[in-house]
Amino acid sequence: MKEYNENHAKSGVSIKLPAIEVFPNQYPGYTIRIEIPEYTAVCPKTGLPDFGTIILEYEPIKSVLELKSLKSYILAYRNVGIFYENAVNRMMRDFVTAAKPKWCKVTGQFATRGGMHSTIIAQHGKAPK
Amino acid sequence: MKEYNENHAKSGVSIKLPAIEVFPNQYPGYTIRIEIPEYTAVCPKTGLPDFGTIILEYEPIKSVLELKSLKSYILAYRNVGIFYENAVNRMMRDFVTAAKPKWCKVTGQFATRGGMHSTIIAQHGKAPK
Amino acid sequence: MKEYNENHAKSGVSIKLPAIEVFPNQYPGYTIRIEIPEYTAVCPKTGLPDFGTIILEYEPIKSVLELKSLKSYILAYRNVGIFYENAVNRMMRDFVTAAKPKWCKVTGQFATRGGMHSTIIAQHGKAPK
Amino acid sequence: MKEYNENHAKSGVSIKLPAIEVFPNQYPGYTIRIEIPEYTAVCPKTGLPDFGTIILEYEPIKSVLELKSLKSYILAYRNVGIFYENAVNRMMRDFVTAAKPKWCKVTGQFATRGGMHSTIIAQHGKAPK
Amino acid sequence: MKEYNENHAKSGVSIKLPAIEVFPNQYPGYTIRIEIPEYTAVCPKTGLPDFGTIILEYEPIKSVLELKSLKSYILAYRNVGIFYENAVNRMMRDFVTAAKPKWCKVTGQFATRGGMHSTIIAQHGKAPK
Amino acid sequence: MKEYNENHAKSGVSIKLPAIEVFPNQYPGYTIRIEIPEYTAVCPKTGLPDFGTIILEYEPIKSVLELKSLKSYILAYRNVGIFYENAVNRMMRDFVTAAKPKWCKVTGQFATRGGMHSTIIAQHGKAPK
Amino acid sequence: MKEYNENHAKSGVSIKLPAIEVFPNQYPGYTIRIEIPEYTAVCPKTGLPDFGTIILEYEPIKSVLELKSLKSYILAYRNVGIFYENAVNRMMRDFVTAAKPKWCKVTGQFATRGGMHSTIIAQHGKAPK
Amino acid sequence: MKEYNENHAKSGVSIKLPAIEVFPNQYPGYTIRIEIPEYTAVCPKTGLPDFGTIILEYEPIKSVLELKSLKSYILAYRNVGIFYENAVNRMMRDFVTAAKPKWCKVTGQFATRGGMHSTIIAQHGKAPK
Amino acid sequence: MKEYNENHAKSGVSIKLPAIEVFPNQYPGYTIRIEIPEYTAVCPKTGLPDFGTIILEYEPIKSVLELKSLKSYILAYRNVGIFYENAVNRMMRDFVTAAKPKWCKVTGQFATRGGMHSTIIAQHGKAPK
Amino acid sequence: MKEYNENHAKSGVSIKLPAIEVFPNQYPGYTIRIEIPEYTAVCPKTGLPDFGTIILEYEPIKSVLELKSLKSYILAYRNVGIFYENAVNRMMRDFVTAAKPKWCKVTGQFATRGGMHSTIIAQHGKAPK
Repeated sequence: MKEYNENHAKSGVSIKLPAIEVFPNQYPGYTIRIEIPEYTAVCPKTGLPDFGTIILEYEPIKSVLELKSLKSYILAYRNVGIFYENAVNRMMRDFVTAAKPKWCKVTGQFATRGGMHSTIIAQHGKAPK
Repeated sequence: MKEYNENHAKSGVSIKLPAIEVFPNQYPGYTIRIEIPEYTAVCPKTGLPDFGTIILEYEPIKSVLELKSLKSYILAYRNVGIFYENAVNRMMRDFVTAAKPKWCKVTGQFATRGGMHSTIIAQHGKAPK
Repeated sequence: MKEYNENHAKSGVSIKLPAIEVFPNQYPGYTIRIEIPEYTAVCPKTGLPDFGTIILEYEPIKSVLELKSLKSYILAYRNVGIFYENAVNRMMRDFVTAAKPKWCKVTGQFATRGGMHSTIIAQHGKAPK
Repeated sequence: MKEYNENHAKSGVSIKLPAIEVFPNQYPGYTIRIEIPEYTAVCPKTGLPDFGTIILEYEPIKSVLELKSLKSYILAYRNVGIFYENAVNRMMRDFVTAAKPKWCKVTGQFATRGGMHSTIIAQHGKAPK
Repeated sequence: MKEYNENHAKSGVSIKLPAIEVFPNQYPGYTIRIEIPEYTAVCPKTGLPDFGTIILEYEPIKSVLELKSLKSYILAYRNVGIFYENAVNRMMRDFVTAAKPKWCKVTGQFATRGGMHSTIIAQHGKAPK
Repeated sequence: MKEYNENHAKSGVSIKLPAIEVFPNQYPGYTIRIEIPEYTAVCPKTGLPDFGTIILEYEPIKSVLELKSLKSYILAYRNVGIFYENAVNRMMRDFVTAAKPKWCKVTGQFATRGGMHSTIIAQHGKAPK
Repeated sequence: MKEYNENHAKSGVSIKLPAIEVFPNQYPGYTIRIEIPEYTAVCPKTGLPDFGTIILEYEPIKSVLELKSLKSYILAYRNVGIFYENAVNRMMRDFVTAAKPKWCKVTGQFATRGGMHSTIIAQHGKAPK
Repeated sequence: MKEYNENHAKSGVSIKLPAIEVFPNQYPGYTIRIEIPEYTAVCPKTGLPDFGTIILEYEPIKSVLELKSLKSYILAYRNVGIFYENAVNRMMRDFVTAAKPKWCKVTGQFATRGGMHSTIIAQHGKAPK
Repeated sequence: MKEYNENHAKSGVSIKLPAIEVFPNQYPGYTIRIEIPEYTAVCPKTGLPDFGTIILEYEPIKSVLELKSLKSYILAYRNVGIFYENAVNRMMRDFVTAAKPKWCKVTGQFATRGGMHSTIIAQHGKAPK
Repeated sequence: MKEYNENHAKSGVSIKLPAIEVFPNQYPGYTIRIEIPEYTAVCPKTGLPDFGTIILEYEPIKSVLELKSLKSYILAYRNVGIFYENAVNRMMRDFVTAAKPKWCKVTGQFATRGGMHSTIIAQHGKAPK
């Protein structure tokens, strides 16, 4: 856990991003999946933009992520310098903090760079198969 | 469970919808899957229409959902103001009440709004993988 | 089980259909899958034709379903009045009676009616995942 | 096992086919999958050619199937009279005899005949899901 | 393990390839998937080029593979004579040595040769299903 | 033209089929395209059913084909013995007689028989490219 | 032209729909294509909803259709009773009235009804091929 | 024209193939398209089998190619040694001789060999675009 | 032409964008097509980002557009407020100014907004069909 | 034409490549299309490999390109430094020199670089539409 803190600065955790609002959930035990094909941020190394699709899946307990504020949150990455891996993990942390879901899975599928196509999958709790 | 009742009004449970008829099942132990790509309702926030595909899967015990009344039931959402999440969960409740199936799964795949594409999956009992 | 008998007449079990021939199986422990996209029957309610694809999967023990007689069997539904659910379950019963397989799964995917697309899946014994 | 022998003649086991060569495996614990879309043989009943795709999957232990001799082996079916089911099972037997793999799975997907599309899947040992 | 050493020469293990760099991982418990559709090497038997797509999946613990050096590593195969099976297993070994991941899976999908299409899948540790 | 008459009997022109109704067209100069994937008839040679998709395209002048009667017309082929070529040409003749369109094109795409997939295209007047 | 007037009432021309706004075009000689997959109206015969995709293509001269008012215009069909053919032709008329384009093409692709899938294509002026 | 004759022997024209039967055409001015995905022959150079799809399109005048004899004709190539280019041109010649159509187009799409995928298109008379 | 000047300010022509470099063309009479799926700009009305794919096609005479500077040019739109129609026409103008091609065609396919999907096609000179 | 010569050195015309063999054509007036998905060369600027698919279409007069030597010719680009545009135009020149066809079209579709996907199309003589 120590190593985690040491790398804080580089992990993207300290980047300022808008809060994601929630509203009270009405029904127990179901799954929400949101596909957001319009993610873009800036590669901190090259200064060039990255593009990707973010897929968020979770099971709400008391709170559901409000879609408009979720959109604002994703838009806020537009001019931020952050690596693929950190963006997906940072999102995961922020979604979990906001909605406190039973489980949560965030998948980032990023546009080809240098002939290589990356997908990052972070999971909190245990998603059903 | 208390929170559930408190939010009743907003959960869409109190919206009037036509009953779904059933007919006696003839064979034990099989699965029915119905894909309905023509769901539409009104977003209670924006007043704009939502569009989506509803996929209903269940294992009948004594009763099978009658397709014509199922269609009328889905059509009844056309001018109703209801959120995605609530529509799928309300349908689940109404299908289970009508058919009392061994298990039931309702998936709603909704058209892109604000560059985001939502899927809601509600399940009653345990569907086979 | 009583209800089952009472509905016999309506279940499609009493409809006359040609026998399906088998030939002796030569090898143990394998799976056969047959996709038949040219199923058609008549809806008993509307008198209009239904169309669909039947997918038969099974593991033979001593007998293999002979394809030519299987074709004749499926063709015999052409001018028969029978519901989706009953057709798939009736086929299942007849396939099992003819081939006595280790397990058998019959899937019927039917053409859209009234904007709704039905799939019926019946299973006998336990198919491997 | 007795029944197996009695049907020997008809099972295709006695058909002469070229041996499949192997070479020593260099790495433990991996999977090989070979898709061969150019299988053709003759239907023993109608004398007409069958066409299909053979998919071979296995985990090598000491030996790997040599691809050139595998190709010659498949080509040798071209003017042979053999049923779908028997061809797939015969291949399975011959692959297992040659490579002695941990597990082996052979899938034959055959071109539509009489509006019916057959797939035969034979397995030796236990393939991972 | 002995057999492994004996075949060392032919296994491709002794081929000189550039080191793959890593950087410290910032987040625990997630998956990285990299698809590289531009693999090419030379068949040691025919001298003709092979083409393929390499898919690398792994769960980082302390280290993440640096993409630029990963690209250089893959490019280094361009004029090397190595068989499909060995290339995939050699990559696996080098990825594991560099990143020491919790688990790692390397899939190579190679272009059709002689009407046959090969896929090689090597795995280290236990990937989630 | 003589040969045409001599073959009348075999051409399918004398088969009794229901009339297709029309209603008055309201707008000049546009195109109607109707795709009917549920055509079936009987092969006069083998007695086996044919299946196909009929695509009707035309530019109405004074009359538009009424869809319900068009459906009844297509359904009427179900137990009729008629060859592919004749069915498409007969339809063309009947559509033109009923709607007197500026131009009309009928395409029949028929299910594979004996490993061969036929398409028949008949045209009356000059369709725009 | 007389017949046209006589059928006015039934042609859908008299239905009240919101005006479509335009803004001044900035560049000469280019094409605009707008695909609107969320059209729905009510069938005047059955009272059941129709669904479809409207594709509008045109070359602006002085005016460009404003997208927000275009959306409101399409939404206004939601509870209107109008046939396919008339809806497409009415739209054409309204688009041409609003934007006075060099040419204009409106295509309506409607969801399957009774196993038949209709496309209506209306054109004003001459679209480039 | 002289060169043509000199190469007769190598052009495949002298290979013995079964005659294709025709039957009298019933309707003027339409198009027939037949797709035959099960062509196979032997490469005269390597002795290895070629595979391909043959697409025949023509406008009949007095005669229509009889499908069963067309199938026998295509099957006859199975053990014949002939190059791609010659097979397609030979077919063209034989189809034209048999049916004397207004125009005729033969397309052969052949399976990948040595990483190259060939299509041969021969045409007699002028096919409509 | 006057109207054009009057709207200059709003047309996007005055927005500052980097120059596109060219290099001397080596061969006469060929076509270059460049697909750029990573266009993004800001909607001047809503302040929200637009996303799209730009397809540039042209026939070079003396100059070829240099790809790296083309990329920089497209990237420069990222934080610019400009409408779809103007962006495509502005690009056209800038490409033509830089390369002076025989003809040039610019297509912009933009992500769905409000359930509507826009494509803008601008052309300079006459592209071959 | 002068400019053409001046740029000779940079145009790739002086690169040494193996000759392409031909054999005498047997039939007049047909089209040959060859798709070669395994092109690779080196970018002269970055030193990194390019990948692409080359599509060659032509109408032979007296000579047909021999496939094996065509393959060797394409393989020869593997370690050559040449730009996209020049490679396609150089191929065109070499194909035309070797086969002297009625017309010839060469299309190169190259893998994405920097988020941009290029296609180069060169044509000699007039290909039919």
